[in-house]
Amino acid sequence: MAAEPPPVRFGILGCANIARKVSRAMILSPNSTIVAIGSRSLEKAANFAKNNGFPVSAKAYGSYDAVLEDPNVDAVYIPLPTSLHLQWAVAAAKKKKHILLEKPVALNFKELDLILKACESNGVQFMDATMWMHHPRTPKMKEFLSDSHSFGQLKTVHSIFSYNSGDDFRKNDIRVKPDLDALGALGDTGWYSIRAILWAADYEMPKTVTALPDAEFNEAGVILSCAASLRWDDGKRATFYCSFLTNLTMDIGVLGSNGYLRVHDFVIPFQENVGPFYVTANTKFAELSIGIEPAPTEHKIYTDLPQEALMVKEFSGLVSGIKEHGSGTEKKWPTISRKTQILVDAVKASIEKGFEPIEVVF
Amino acid sequence: MAAEPPPVRFGILGCANIARKVSRAMILSPNSTIVAIGSRSLEKAANFAKNNGFPVSAKAYGSYDAVLEDPNVDAVYIPLPTSLHLQWAVAAAKKKKHILLEKPVALNFKELDLILKACESNGVQFMDATMWMHHPRTPKMKEFLSDSHSFGQLKTVHSIFSYNSGDDFRKNDIRVKPDLDALGALGDTGWYSIRAILWAADYEMPKTVTALPDAEFNEAGVILSCAASLRWDDGKRATFYCSFLTNLTMDIGVLGSNGYLRVHDFVIPFQENVGPFYVTANTKFAELSIGIEPAPTEHKIYTDLPQEALMVKEFSGLVSGIKEHGSGTEKKWPTISRKTQILVDAVKASIEKGFEPIEVVF
Repeated sequence: MAAEPPPVRFGILGCANIARKVSRAMILSPNSTIVAIGSRSLEKAANFAKNNGFPVSAKAYGSYDAVLEDPNVDAVYIPLPTSLHLQWAVAAAKKKKHILLEKPVALNFKELDLILKACESNGVQFMDATMWMHHPRTPKMKEFLSDSHSFGQLKTVHSIFSYNSGDDFRKNDIRVKPDLDALGALGDTGWYSIRAILWAADYEMPKTVTALPDAEFNEAGVILSCAASLRWDDGKRATFYCSFLTNLTMDIGVLGSNGYLRVHDFVIPFQENVGPFYVTANTKFAELSIGIEPAPTEHKIYTDLPQEALMVKEFSGLVSGIKEHGSGTEKKWPTISRKTQILVDAVKASIEKGFEPIEVVF
Repeated sequence: MAAEPPPVRFGILGCANIARKVSRAMILSPNSTIVAIGSRSLEKAANFAKNNGFPVSAKAYGSYDAVLEDPNVDAVYIPLPTSLHLQWAVAAAKKKKHILLEKPVALNFKELDLILKACESNGVQFMDATMWMHHPRTPKMKEFLSDSHSFGQLKTVHSIFSYNSGDDFRKNDIRVKPDLDALGALGDTGWYSIRAILWAADYEMPKTVTALPDAEFNEAGVILSCAASLRWDDGKRATFYCSFLTNLTMDIGVLGSNGYLRVHDFVIPFQENVGPFYVTANTKFAELSIGIEPAPTEHKIYTDLPQEALMVKEFSGLVSGIKEHGSGTEKKWPTISRKTQILVDAVKASIEKGFEPIEVVF
């Protein structure tokens, strides 16, 4: 058996709150370690490292550039505000750093294409930080959706991701600042629902996207809630709702000719070590239309590592393959990031055009 | 204590399959009995009475008219195809029979208004046979939705009612025949979702209704599946999907600023004696965005009588009040039937106009 490859060495750009969770994941994942963090404030970077259990050897820098210059950094995790993604992801790629990029990955797909082009021409792996894709529940649910007997043909999907962020957030958080995260709730929560819909549809792109009136905005014009409907040529249809104005909700419902799948904590499992989902298949009303047969079933998928550690592990495995064995980059991840971003853009365009249908071009 | 009033005496028009379930409910309900059933075939009526445990004194007639002529009949249950509702409901009202009418109550609200006018001018009670309205779970769920701390402001509702009816049904059942039940899946299943949305919105009518492309039709042009979005002036929004083409699904999800309510068997409880629902309230991500607090809760509402017997009991109580004490008719039931029908009509109009928004006028 070949020796274990050395762990992938992460640098982190910025001290965003979400970086606390992802740092922990880098420590938990068996094939990665943290070697550097950069912030505009050296003190902030040093404190972050200290407070989040970084290895003592990890370096704290007073700039993002310094992380990119560090030859010991294999890969960077970028949790900066979306408006900074283009600049820093491209800079990282030019320094041959593999990139784990927070979502929404860009302000629009043109920006994303510049990032992806930089990744490709520099041979670096790109992955967005959509954690739930890496939970073992996700392929188990897909198994059900792929079963022609139990699920049949996909007909419709509905997804919700919302949280009630509070008044202060809605005025002051970076996620509602037009110069930082101009996509607002659509980029922060709609991203997940759009990904869920694409995932359910085997990443087949819809033909049109239509935002549903009305959307809600803060005083700066950033989206606080919106909904949209997506349609495919074969009659499939999906709807989603994303919001900063309603209670924390993380639902997907996928309805097929023969079956139905529900999950209520798809973004972040209610419990870290188990992800449940619920299915019905070939359900009929019982005699006299009293009750149903067969009963719905609950499936619980256990995991030793939290989904964010599995994400880091998957990403690091790809980076290791490239570094140690000269493997090519995995195209799946940039491809689905791009499809997701294109649909985010389409919803935004539909809202801006007064809720007109937008043809999806990609 | 006053003596119990005599039971309300039901006549049934026709031998529809659903009449088996509702007959059982009339037998189970403590304040009703069955005295007559009419069919175009006397033999069919007699067999129906025999096979469904009718009192031996119940009369079988070879026509609907004969039921209406029977002076022992206080109230009629009408499970005929929708295209026959106008004729027979008006005829019943003229004979001073109180009316429990299957849904969809009419082919359109103009027909319904003729029925309601006949009921009003003859002083008879009208109620549609939407059973779930009478489950004790329904007011318990409403209690949650009315709680400003736990639920807050209603923001969005999504509902699904569908069943996979099979190829033969989609060609031959009365529910897909343009001359019998021209509203197809919209009338048969969409009715319930629209009612659920109205119920969640305290029966406040939306401003516009827009069907979502595309709808599906059988060869005769009857709706097999459709979806729509409804919007209110205050920014509330609802969506629903109804279908004969997807697995049996009966969901409502009601999302407010502070809480979320889910129910997965709202039309017909999976178990006859208990109706569960699920809520989250004031949910936050836990430390490091791992898990949530507080956990979602399940509420189980038990019932001795099935919801259809509670419906018969409620209706019979109203009829008794009118008969024994000269009470006025209860306007709530015709009012919500009418609102539901108006929205069914609006969805149909939107589909017919190429998925244009329809202003709701009532």
